Amino acid sequence: MLDGDIVRTHLSKGLGFSKEDRDENIRRIGFVCELLSRNGIIAIAAVISPYRAARADVRACIPNFVEVHMDCPLEVLIERDAKGLYRKAIAGEISHFTGISDPYEPPSSPEVTIHSDCESPTMGVDRLWAKLNAMGLI
Amino acid sequence: MLDGDIVRTHLSKGLGFSKEDRDENIRRIGFVCELLSRNGIIAIAAVISPYRAARADVRACIPNFVEVHMDCPLEVLIERDAKGLYRKAIAGEISHFTGISDPYEPPSSPEVTIHSDCESPTMGVDRLWAKLNAMGLI
Repeated sequence: MLDGDIVRTHLSKGLGFSKEDRDENIRRIGFVCELLSRNGIIAIAAVISPYRAARADVRACIPNFVEVHMDCPLEVLIERDAKGLYRKAIAGEISHFTGISDPYEPPSSPEVTIHSDCESPTMGVDRLWAKLNAMGLI
Repeated sequence: MLDGDIVRTHLSKGLGFSKEDRDENIRRIGFVCELLSRNGIIAIAAVISPYRAARADVRACIPNFVEVHMDCPLEVLIERDAKGLYRKAIAGEISHFTGISDPYEPPSSPEVTIHSDCESPTMGVDRLWAKLNAMGLI
C-alpha cells in the first residue's frame, strides 16, 4: 500500500507540485507498483494523480491496472477538510492545491468510481471487491 | 533486481552525486527493497553505495539484509573501464566519481566479499549462494 504522503517523503523528496513534478511523482509510484505487481504482489497506490496522461502511462506499463476514481464533490471535501488543508488553500496559504488552485482531470473510463459522499466505505469496498472478482483478479 | 542506472532514471532523476544526494538515492532504494522483501520477494540492489552510514540505515530497516562487497583494486577497474567512465574521470571530465574524485567507505563487516579480480563470476556466485544457504535464507 503506497500512501501519497509516505511516497512524498520516501521516494519523491524534493519534488514539488508543478505538473512536471506531479507527473514524475506518479511515474515513480508506477515504477514501484510495476516492480511489486510483476512479483505477484497486489500494490495499492492511494495518491493524488491529477493528470490523465500520467495515469495512462502507468496503465500502459502494468498489466491488470485497475483505476479507482475516488469521486467526491468539492463542497463535501471542503466541509470535511480532514487535514485542514482546504481552509489554508482557500485562504491562499497553500498554492498548487488540487481542486482549488490546481487542475484535476477526472478519469474518462476508470474501472471503478467510488462516490464517497453518498456511499459508505463498506459499500465502496464491496463494489470494488465485486469488480476485482468479475475481472478475475481475486 | 534494482540496477543503479535504472534506479537513477526511474526513482532518482534530479539527484546528483553529492554525499547528500547519494545518501537520498540509497534511502530510496532501501525503501523499495523493504517493500519488496516485506512481501517475500528477494530484492537485489546492484548499486554504488559509498557511505557506510547510509548502508547501516538501510540494514536497520530490513530483516535479512545481506551486504555483498564487490571488492576490486582500483588499478583493475581502471584497466577494465567497461563504460569508459574511468578514463573520463581521470581526465577530469567527470567529477564526483567514486574511487577517483569521490570517497568510497568499504564495509567493515559485509556478509560476503567478492574479489572479482581473482575469482570468476561463478566462484563468486557459489560463495554467495553458500552463504545465503548457511544463513537459512534460501
